[in-house]
Amino acid sequence: MTSGGKPLFDRVAILGIGLIGSSLARAIKRDGMAGTLVAGDIGPGVAARALALGIVDEATEDLVAAVTDADLVVLCAPVGACEVIAEAIGPVLKPGCIVSDVGSIKERVIAMVAPHLPDGVHLIPGHPVAGTEKSGPESGFAELFQGRWCILTPPKGADEGALARVAEMWRRAGMIIEVMEPAHHDRVLAITSHLPHLIAYTIVGTASDLEDHLHREVIKFSASGFRDFTRIAGSDPIMWRDIFLNNQEAVLDILQRFTEDLTALQRAIRRGEGETLEALFTKTRAVRQAVVDAKQA
Amino acid sequence: MTSGGKPLFDRVAILGIGLIGSSLARAIKRDGMAGTLVAGDIGPGVAARALALGIVDEATEDLVAAVTDADLVVLCAPVGACEVIAEAIGPVLKPGCIVSDVGSIKERVIAMVAPHLPDGVHLIPGHPVAGTEKSGPESGFAELFQGRWCILTPPKGADEGALARVAEMWRRAGMIIEVMEPAHHDRVLAITSHLPHLIAYTIVGTASDLEDHLHREVIKFSASGFRDFTRIAGSDPIMWRDIFLNNQEAVLDILQRFTEDLTALQRAIRRGEGETLEALFTKTRAVRQAVVDAKQA
Repeated sequence: MTSGGKPLFDRVAILGIGLIGSSLARAIKRDGMAGTLVAGDIGPGVAARALALGIVDEATEDLVAAVTDADLVVLCAPVGACEVIAEAIGPVLKPGCIVSDVGSIKERVIAMVAPHLPDGVHLIPGHPVAGTEKSGPESGFAELFQGRWCILTPPKGADEGALARVAEMWRRAGMIIEVMEPAHHDRVLAITSHLPHLIAYTIVGTASDLEDHLHREVIKFSASGFRDFTRIAGSDPIMWRDIFLNNQEAVLDILQRFTEDLTALQRAIRRGEGETLEALFTKTRAVRQAVVDAKQA
Repeated sequence: MTSGGKPLFDRVAILGIGLIGSSLARAIKRDGMAGTLVAGDIGPGVAARALALGIVDEATEDLVAAVTDADLVVLCAPVGACEVIAEAIGPVLKPGCIVSDVGSIKERVIAMVAPHLPDGVHLIPGHPVAGTEKSGPESGFAELFQGRWCILTPPKGADEGALARVAEMWRRAGMIIEVMEPAHHDRVLAITSHLPHLIAYTIVGTASDLEDHLHREVIKFSASGFRDFTRIAGSDPIMWRDIFLNNQEAVLDILQRFTEDLTALQRAIRRGEGETLEALFTKTRAVRQAVVDAKQA
């Protein structure tokens, strides 16, 4: 993609410089992928913090200024903010500019962003499947993406060259690229990510509603399983609100299956059906082994 | 507890030399807590494997032989096996012998074991709150207990000296001791451990019932949340079957609360109630912080 040390992009704008945005900024800097790297973030003081961290060349609270003359714009804001951002920046994007994102849902993001992009601007939506429960520009690190999957979901007829350049950026950040239909992505992620988060939020919420003394003991003895759920349920509230609101159908569908299975398990416990329990627990252990074998553990 | 290098116990028998039993054996060896350390395990070849690992002085498939002349017997078998073991070994236990266990439930274990112990034998049930999803004598390690809680649940009128010696053993293994009523232990653990495992088993089961191609993709992209559940759902099937069968009431009670909360959340997603979601997710984030502050993260 590059030759003679020319960076992959002349000017890259990252809009939203939180955990993912700032991790991408660090990876771009590390590998010299941008001539100039700009952060745009409307959060009070966030752009200034990113600049102070030395992870971008420029930073501004003015998103329109950030994207002016950019060859690549990566939306790293919560999914719910993408439409209003696209509407604001659309008119100033230069011809040939690539717009990408890092959202955990894809179909709705495309529906929200695409209509606001002028002809000649290429939309290549992406989802780097990586993260931690932390937020903010200080929490990012370049190695976050190493060895993880990046799912790209180009709309029909997307520009092949633009797709290749976005793929190359994530590859250099350490990711393995997978190309998928947007709707299929949303269904897979509803199972692997959105339902687990929903469940974790619920169980931690249930525990936090307990009587005070019991609540304190739950924290104290959380190492016995609960703490793994608190880590997931410590994820960014706005980001996750937006995911559930925008992937409603796929989430409710898998949730329905989960609830049926949970009811069956509840019944087996109430009736003391040890064989049913053992059979399920043996099956799930095999799934764990498959995850380990796939080097995703 | 010791003086002049005398070990804490002359002869210790660990019955069931899996993850917890073999980790305890390693800790006892490391700190010289036993004059002689014996493993008893009826699993085919397990006793021999423990002996070959060098983590015990003697090993046998004959549990009665293992406990003969022991000052301390620690039941490390699945909870469901404790009654039949207690019945078998009760008659040969010497006066003053302490019987303890490591089970994740306490009220039922006491009910199963106590009636089979002769007068003059002290029952001090315990629960080292530590573990991994692995099984077998090879998977244990002495550091498993370091900095974790050990909950002791002595029945009313239990011998204070016996309690102190069991506490001392776990303290030397690195644990922090908490004494609790058996029924209260079972309620707290139903929330912190049994419900999380039940949920994890369910969600992994739901995913494994999906169509083949989707199932493969769920494994592939499991890093986005699902894999944390597979780790929990990879835990020992027999052990967990027994826990659910023997802590039925407390588990079904907290499961009922969980289901109500999940239904409320499902409704909020269906109706697009962003504020409800955000409020819950903000609350659960605070619980995560409490877990981190309690150094249990």
